[in-house]
Amino acid sequence: MSGTTVQNDEREIRDLVSTWIAATKTGDVDTILSLMTDDAIFLLPGQVMRKDDFAAAARAQSSHESPQIDGSSDIEEIKILGEWAFMRTKLRVVVTPPAGAPSIERAGHTLTILQKRNGKWLLAHDANLLAAVPK
Amino acid sequence: MSGTTVQNDEREIRDLVSTWIAATKTGDVDTILSLMTDDAIFLLPGQVMRKDDFAAAARAQSSHESPQIDGSSDIEEIKILGEWAFMRTKLRVVVTPPAGAPSIERAGHTLTILQKRNGKWLLAHDANLLAAVPK
Repeated sequence: MSGTTVQNDEREIRDLVSTWIAATKTGDVDTILSLMTDDAIFLLPGQVMRKDDFAAAARAQSSHESPQIDGSSDIEEIKILGEWAFMRTKLRVVVTPPAGAPSIERAGHTLTILQKRNGKWLLAHDANLLAAVPK
Repeated sequence: MSGTTVQNDEREIRDLVSTWIAATKTGDVDTILSLMTDDAIFLLPGQVMRKDDFAAAARAQSSHESPQIDGSSDIEEIKILGEWAFMRTKLRVVVTPPAGAPSIERAGHTLTILQKRNGKWLLAHDANLLAAVPK
């Protein structure tokens, strides 16, 4: 039973990542916000964002003149710890601005803390270590 | 009993952080290496380091002509999850090169996964989000 539960938890977390990436591509900010806790914390180099900051930045990015965002995530580790989990992924994001400007590629790792609340896995903390890839 | 155990675990993890910072200041690489698992993973912007990489970099930095390193850590969160834990800290590091060159300040957050092995807490994964602070 316990092994099955862990497998279910892992599958649900993989589904969360797939949904997040798909929603990022289509600019579906509401779906992304539904995948995180209300007190989610995003750690970036020299910077911290809360859910409100994340929402504002994501909505600005999904406006009319927005760049096209493509990404892929390679999940290197998921560890289930009861109602909590951590995950390490290798991420690659390509941002293509409108009007033919050159695309920008960013790559690197993420380290994420997830929490199961009311039976649903949500992102709680996310450390984003992506850096620009030289052309 | 459980509450007391969590308090003990938290205190041991705080002690680990204090020991790590003190050993960084004195260039005591062996002590730092004793505070991490053999399969520890360090995530930096656009970069991954294993324990061997960390040791080589730390030994190079603690050589004769080495800079003086000072730092302070503000632990914002510790969450004990049985034999695992995660921790979020706000870190500030000032590196002063020898021969009067200007010092460099770096600040930002860390997100760390710790594991209790054979009764001792060790650093397992560390995401380092420090960035240079403009003068």
